[in-house]
Amino acid sequence: MPAAPHRSSIRLAALLLAVVSAGTFAQDAPRARARDLGVAPGIFAPGTHNAITDVAGVRVGQVTLVEGDNVRTGVTAILPHPGNPYRSRVPAAVHVGNGFGKFIGSTQVNELGELETPIVLTCTLCVWKAADAMAAWMLERPDMQQVRSLNVVVGETNDGGLNDIRARPVTAQAVRRALETASGGPVQEGSVGAGTGTVAFGWKGGIGTSSRRLPASLGGWTVGVLVQANFGGVLQVAGAPIGRELDRYAFQNAVAANTDGSRGLADDRGDGSIIIVIATDAPLGDRNLRRVASRAMMGLGRTGSSASNGSGDYVLAFSTADSVRRVFDAPKLDTSELANEQMSAVFQASVEAVEEAIYNAVFMATTISGNGETVEAIPLDRVRDILRRHGIAPAK
Amino acid sequence: MPAAPHRSSIRLAALLLAVVSAGTFAQDAPRARARDLGVAPGIFAPGTHNAITDVAGVRVGQVTLVEGDNVRTGVTAILPHPGNPYRSRVPAAVHVGNGFGKFIGSTQVNELGELETPIVLTCTLCVWKAADAMAAWMLERPDMQQVRSLNVVVGETNDGGLNDIRARPVTAQAVRRALETASGGPVQEGSVGAGTGTVAFGWKGGIGTSSRRLPASLGGWTVGVLVQANFGGVLQVAGAPIGRELDRYAFQNAVAANTDGSRGLADDRGDGSIIIVIATDAPLGDRNLRRVASRAMMGLGRTGSSASNGSGDYVLAFSTADSVRRVFDAPKLDTSELANEQMSAVFQASVEAVEEAIYNAVFMATTISGNGETVEAIPLDRVRDILRRHGIAPAK
Amino acid sequence: MPAAPHRSSIRLAALLLAVVSAGTFAQDAPRARARDLGVAPGIFAPGTHNAITDVAGVRVGQVTLVEGDNVRTGVTAILPHPGNPYRSRVPAAVHVGNGFGKFIGSTQVNELGELETPIVLTCTLCVWKAADAMAAWMLERPDMQQVRSLNVVVGETNDGGLNDIRARPVTAQAVRRALETASGGPVQEGSVGAGTGTVAFGWKGGIGTSSRRLPASLGGWTVGVLVQANFGGVLQVAGAPIGRELDRYAFQNAVAANTDGSRGLADDRGDGSIIIVIATDAPLGDRNLRRVASRAMMGLGRTGSSASNGSGDYVLAFSTADSVRRVFDAPKLDTSELANEQMSAVFQASVEAVEEAIYNAVFMATTISGNGETVEAIPLDRVRDILRRHGIAPAK
Amino acid sequence: MPAAPHRSSIRLAALLLAVVSAGTFAQDAPRARARDLGVAPGIFAPGTHNAITDVAGVRVGQVTLVEGDNVRTGVTAILPHPGNPYRSRVPAAVHVGNGFGKFIGSTQVNELGELETPIVLTCTLCVWKAADAMAAWMLERPDMQQVRSLNVVVGETNDGGLNDIRARPVTAQAVRRALETASGGPVQEGSVGAGTGTVAFGWKGGIGTSSRRLPASLGGWTVGVLVQANFGGVLQVAGAPIGRELDRYAFQNAVAANTDGSRGLADDRGDGSIIIVIATDAPLGDRNLRRVASRAMMGLGRTGSSASNGSGDYVLAFSTADSVRRVFDAPKLDTSELANEQMSAVFQASVEAVEEAIYNAVFMATTISGNGETVEAIPLDRVRDILRRHGIAPAK
Repeated sequence: MPAAPHRSSIRLAALLLAVVSAGTFAQDAPRARARDLGVAPGIFAPGTHNAITDVAGVRVGQVTLVEGDNVRTGVTAILPHPGNPYRSRVPAAVHVGNGFGKFIGSTQVNELGELETPIVLTCTLCVWKAADAMAAWMLERPDMQQVRSLNVVVGETNDGGLNDIRARPVTAQAVRRALETASGGPVQEGSVGAGTGTVAFGWKGGIGTSSRRLPASLGGWTVGVLVQANFGGVLQVAGAPIGRELDRYAFQNAVAANTDGSRGLADDRGDGSIIIVIATDAPLGDRNLRRVASRAMMGLGRTGSSASNGSGDYVLAFSTADSVRRVFDAPKLDTSELANEQMSAVFQASVEAVEEAIYNAVFMATTISGNGETVEAIPLDRVRDILRRHGIAPAK
Repeated sequence: MPAAPHRSSIRLAALLLAVVSAGTFAQDAPRARARDLGVAPGIFAPGTHNAITDVAGVRVGQVTLVEGDNVRTGVTAILPHPGNPYRSRVPAAVHVGNGFGKFIGSTQVNELGELETPIVLTCTLCVWKAADAMAAWMLERPDMQQVRSLNVVVGETNDGGLNDIRARPVTAQAVRRALETASGGPVQEGSVGAGTGTVAFGWKGGIGTSSRRLPASLGGWTVGVLVQANFGGVLQVAGAPIGRELDRYAFQNAVAANTDGSRGLADDRGDGSIIIVIATDAPLGDRNLRRVASRAMMGLGRTGSSASNGSGDYVLAFSTADSVRRVFDAPKLDTSELANEQMSAVFQASVEAVEEAIYNAVFMATTISGNGETVEAIPLDRVRDILRRHGIAPAK
Repeated sequence: MPAAPHRSSIRLAALLLAVVSAGTFAQDAPRARARDLGVAPGIFAPGTHNAITDVAGVRVGQVTLVEGDNVRTGVTAILPHPGNPYRSRVPAAVHVGNGFGKFIGSTQVNELGELETPIVLTCTLCVWKAADAMAAWMLERPDMQQVRSLNVVVGETNDGGLNDIRARPVTAQAVRRALETASGGPVQEGSVGAGTGTVAFGWKGGIGTSSRRLPASLGGWTVGVLVQANFGGVLQVAGAPIGRELDRYAFQNAVAANTDGSRGLADDRGDGSIIIVIATDAPLGDRNLRRVASRAMMGLGRTGSSASNGSGDYVLAFSTADSVRRVFDAPKLDTSELANEQMSAVFQASVEAVEEAIYNAVFMATTISGNGETVEAIPLDRVRDILRRHGIAPAK
Repeated sequence: MPAAPHRSSIRLAALLLAVVSAGTFAQDAPRARARDLGVAPGIFAPGTHNAITDVAGVRVGQVTLVEGDNVRTGVTAILPHPGNPYRSRVPAAVHVGNGFGKFIGSTQVNELGELETPIVLTCTLCVWKAADAMAAWMLERPDMQQVRSLNVVVGETNDGGLNDIRARPVTAQAVRRALETASGGPVQEGSVGAGTGTVAFGWKGGIGTSSRRLPASLGGWTVGVLVQANFGGVLQVAGAPIGRELDRYAFQNAVAANTDGSRGLADDRGDGSIIIVIATDAPLGDRNLRRVASRAMMGLGRTGSSASNGSGDYVLAFSTADSVRRVFDAPKLDTSELANEQMSAVFQASVEAVEEAIYNAVFMATTISGNGETVEAIPLDRVRDILRRHGIAPAK
C-alpha cells in the first residue's frame, strides 16, 4: 500500500485523521453490486438507492481510518432521523443471533423498546472509546444539558487481522465526524468506515446495504438494511456455491473438513461477526421489531453463514414511522402500528434485504493490506462465471 | 381418493385406527429425495441413512391417520435412546423461532436443560390429547409408579386444510402406537405421520429427515434432523427459485405481491409452521444445544422461508452422548462436553441437515385430498428442469 | 374427613362432579384474610373486594373436586372480560420465574403479546386434559366455527400429595363448569378450586387474591392478583418469621439445615409451584405487562420463597383497558398506553398485591386430608401471636 | 464538607487521584452493619467476614473519588480468583432484572456461559471509559499479548445527584488502582468506591456485602454477595416498615401517593439502579448460575424495592469451584457440577445474602454532599427504635 501520503497523518498523530477513500487500495478489477451481477434475491423490488437510506430520514456517515502500516479500521454511523433521537425516540429492538460480541446498549433498548441515540459501528476493542465519544457528542447538545443518563448503542466486528486493534485506534474525532457527516442518498460500500478492515467468507468484507419496497397492496413500506460484514462460512450467492468452487472455507479449522487437507484457510476460524441494522418506515411496535430483527439470521443463513462460535451476530431494527414515534417524557404513548397479521411481508422484505446487503458488502469490498496481512477482494470475474453456470446472469 | 377401504375404520370408530401407508394416495410420479435430484446442501456428507436415526439410538415411530373424507393427520414420535428417557435424561434445549404455536414442554426443557420424555409431533388442536396420552403411557411403566410430575414434549403444525382439525382426531392409541413402533434405520418421509396433512411452500409438505457426519478431524460427530414441514414462503432449492418459476408464493396475501394479480395462492397466508428436531451424538451441554437449535432457523431461511407471522417455528436439540447423560436423582452431574470453540462445525452440520430435511419433506410428499381440499405434491419433473438450468443435476 | 357425603359422587362417576365447599373440611379455627390480622403490605390501598375481580370485567370461576379418599383437586378459571377473548383480545405477557412447570400457552402469548382464551389453573398432570376441554368449549361457540388454531392458557401446580394426581382426575365437565360459573365480586380463597390440594410453606396452601387501587394522582388504576399457592420456603409475613418460629421449613432437605436435625419437614423439598395472574385496567402494552409480570417474583420473595428448584413459578399479566384492546383481524392496532416512565407505581402495586394474595391463600386455607395424607391449615392463633410480637396487630 | 484538602487534587487534575476515605464525611453517628442491629435475614449463617470475600479467592478493590465540590464517585472491582480470569475462566451468567442500565458485557457472558475479566462497577456515564481502561489493563499482561478480543464486564448505577456525572470523572488510573489493590478479607461498605455517590430508598446508599455458608449437610458451600445500591422503593428491614415510619418514599412521583401531599420526596423517581454480584464456591454450571442470578430479585424485593421503571437492575453470578473452571482453549470441558435438585439451598442462601448486603449498604453509608446536594445517611437510632418495636433487637 502507498505509505507516503500517510506520513502527515502519522506526524499529526491524534489530532488529525487520515481519512482516505477506500479506492486508494483498489488494485482490484472494478467492483459491482450484487444486482449488477444479476443477483436479485427474493421477490420484492429494491428502493431508489437499494440502501438503508431509502427509508426516509435515515442517514449514514462513515469515516475510514487508514494510518501508517497498521491502522485499517473506521466508523459507520446510522442516524434514525434528522432530529434529536433522545427527544424523539424510535421504537427499536435488538436480537442477539450469537452473543460473542461487545455490542453496547442492547439490554436497555429491549427493556424500554426504544433507541435514544444513533447507532455507531466500529472495531471490537474500540467500542468503549466510541461509546464514550458518542455520549460526549450527544450530551453537548443544547437540548441535552440536563441529561444524566444515556444509552448509546455501539456495535462492532473484529478487524484484528488487518488492523492493529490492540491499539484501539478509533478516536473521538472519528466518531464525531461520522455522526456529523451523515447523509441520505447512496451509501458507500465495501472497505469503508467500520468495514475498512473486515473479512467475510475468507475474502475482504465490509459495509453493505440494500432495501426493499413492498407493493402498495402490501402496505408500500420500505425496509432498509446496512451490514458490517466480517464473518465466516462458505459463501453461496443465490445458492451458487462460490465458496466451494473457489475453495474458500472460512470456519473452524476449515481445512480439517477436507479429506486431503489440501485446501481451505487453515488458520481461519471464521470467527468474525456481523452487525445488521434494519430500518423501516412501516409502523411497527417494539415487539414486532424484535421479530423483524430475528429474521435477519435467516437472510444471513442464505449467504452461507452458520453463525460460527466466535461470531458476534447482533441485529437492531427500528421504525421511523411517525405513528409509533415516542416523544420524550410524554405520559402516554399513543400509537398506530401494524397488527401481527400484517407482518409477514415485512419479514420477507427484511430477509431479502439482509441477504443482498451481505453480497454487496463482499462484492464491493476492495483488497486491503495492513498489519502485515493482505485480504483479497473476491474475484468478481470468477464469481460471474460461477453465477452464469448456475443460471444467474445480469439482465440485459 | 379410494374411500371404500376406509368404511370399516369409520364403523369401528374410536377403537380402530385406519393406519394406511401414504402410498395409497400416490397418483404422483415417483418421489425422490433431494440428493437423488443432485441437491446436496453444504460441505459435509450425510450419514448412512441420511436420517435422524443415523444418530445411534435415536428411533422414530409414525402413525398415519386417514379416515373417511376428513381425517388426514397423524403422529410422529422421536425417542432419544432405547432406555427410559425419564431415568436417563439427555441434555436438551428449545429455541422458539416464531412462537405462534402450541409447542408443549418448552419452558421446563430450558429451565432444567434436559428432556425427560420422547418428543411427539401431531396436529395443532391435537397436542393436548397427545400430551395426555404420552403422559399416561409413560406413567404406566413399572419404573414410573412413583412419578407425579412429567414434562411431556409435544409439537404441532396446523394441518387444518386437509384435515378436520376441529375434531381433534388424534387418539391416545395413535400416540401409543407411534411410541411403541419406533425404530432406527430409514425414516418414512413425506405425507406420513404428523406430516400426513401438512402443506409447505404451497405444495404438499410432510416429514423430512437428513443427517451429517463430521470428518474425524472435526470430531466425527453425527447430527441428525427431522422436520414436520407445514409452512409458507417462496421455495428455493440450493438457491434455484422453484417458487418463482412455478409461480407458487405462499405467504401473507401473496397474490397482492404481483403487479397483475394473476398468480399466487390468493388465500394462502403461508401460516403453517415447522417443528425441527435435532439429535446429535456430539457431547453438548444444554447451552450449546440451545445455540445449535437457534441455527436451525438459518437452514430454514435457506429454503425460502422468512418465518411468517402465523408460523409456529420451534426447534428442539438434544445430545445422546454418554458423557453428558444425566442419571435421575444423582446429586452431581459429571460431564465431558465440547468446549465453545469446537461448536462451529456442529452448527454448520445442523444448518445443512435442516435445509436438506426440508427439501426431503417436500420432494417426498405425495398429493393428498381431504376435508374438501386437495394439495398437490410438487412436480418433481419440473423441479428437475429448474435445477438443471441452475447448474444442479444428479451425479451420474 | 367425612366420606359418607361423597358416596353419590363416586356412584355417578364421570357424569357428576362432587363439588363441595371447602368448608366441609374446616375443623380449623375460623380463617381470616391477611388484612384481618393487621397485615397490610405496602403503601397502597386495596380495591373493594381486595380481589382480582376489582379490575372491572374480570371474572373468576372455581370448581372444587373432592371425590372418595383420593381426589382433592379442582379448577380455577380467570376470564379477562365478559366478551369472547378470542375476538376481543387483551394484551398479555408471561414471565417464567422458574420453569419447572407445565404451563401451557406461554410462547404464543409472548410472541403475539396477547391472550386469546381464559386462563385455567388446575393440577399438574391435569393440564393437558384441561387444555383440551377449554379448547373444545371455546370452539363450540357460534362465533368460533371457522377457527382452527387456538392458544389455550393453562397453568398448574402439583397437588400430588393430597390428590391422586396420577389418575389425572380433572374432567372436561369440571373445566367447563369453572368457565361457565365465573363471576365478579368476592373470590373464594383457600382450599378451593385449583387450590384444593395445594401446600405452601409446609402448611395447606390454596387460592388467594388481593388488589391495589392507585391514588388518582398516580392514575387511579387497579391492579388485581390471583395466586395458586403450592410452593416451599420459610414463611415470613410482613417480615415476621412465622416459619422459623413455628419450626416449619419447606425446602430441599430442609431438616439438614438444622444443626441438631430435630426439626423441619424431612421429606418436603418445597418443590411445589405458584401460578400468579395479574390483571389491571391500566392501559399497558405487552412489553410493559411483561415487566409487570417479572415484578411478581419480588412479591413472592417477600413471603419467604426463594423459588426452589422444583417450583414452577409462572406469572401472566394482562390489561383490560379498552385503549389497548385488540380486535381480531384488524389490520392496524391503534392503542393508547402508559409510557415507560409511568410504570413504577403499577410495579409497586403489583408487588404488594402478590405478597398479600399469597398470605390470603395460606391464611384462608383449611386443613385437607386425602390420598393418605393430611396437610394442616396454618394455626392462625399462633400466627397472630407472632405478628403481635413483631408489632403487627389488627387495626381496631 | 471540608473543601480545603481537595484543592491539591484539583490542581493536579488528571494526574492525581483524590482518594479519600469515606470517613472524611462522617458527621453521622457511628454506622453499623445489619447484623449489629439484630437483623439476620433468613435461616443460614454468614461466613467469616459476612462478605463476598468469604468465597475463597474472591478479591475486592475500591477507589473512592472525591474531588472539589462536584466529584463524588468511584470504582469497585471484583476479581473472581487470583489468576488471569481470561486464561482460567469461571462459569457465569447475567440476569437482567430491569434493563434500564448500561451494563457492559452481558450478552457474551450469557452466550458463552463464562466471565473472562474482573467485574468493575462505577458511575453510569463512566462505564465506557472504565471498560476501555480495564481492557487496556488486561491487554498489557505478558500472557495477553496475542489477545484481540476481550469481553470486559462493567456495571453502573447513576450517582448523578451527588456527582457531576456529565463530566465522566472516572479515570483509567482509578480503574487500574481498584483492580490492583483488590484484596480478600473485610470489604469496606457504604459511601465508598462505586457507592460513593449513590442513593437508596431516599437515603445515602453505597456498597454492601454479605455471605452465607450452607451447613455441611447441604454441601457446605459459601455464597457471597456484593451490591452497589442506588435504587428506590420504600425501605423495609426484615419487614419492619422503615420507609413508611420515617416518611421516606422513593419512587415515581412518590409524593402523589399521599393523600395530603405533605410528605415524600417530591422529585425522587426512585430511578436509581442496583448491581448485584454473586460469587459462590458451589460447583455450578452456567445455567444454574443464571437461575441463582434471577433469585437476587427476590432478595431485592424483600428490602422494599419493586424495581422501578428507571432502575437498571443487573445480577451477575459466578462460581469459583475448580471442578467447573474452564481452561482457555481446551477442546473439551470436563466438569462436575451440582445437579438441579441440589440447587434450592443455594437459591435460598443467595436471596438471604442479597437482602442483607442491601441493608449493609444503607446502614453503613455516611452522609455525602456534592454537586450542590446532600444526601443523608439513614438515622440508625431511629431505625433501631422501629426495629425494636417490630420485635427485632440485637442479640446480647
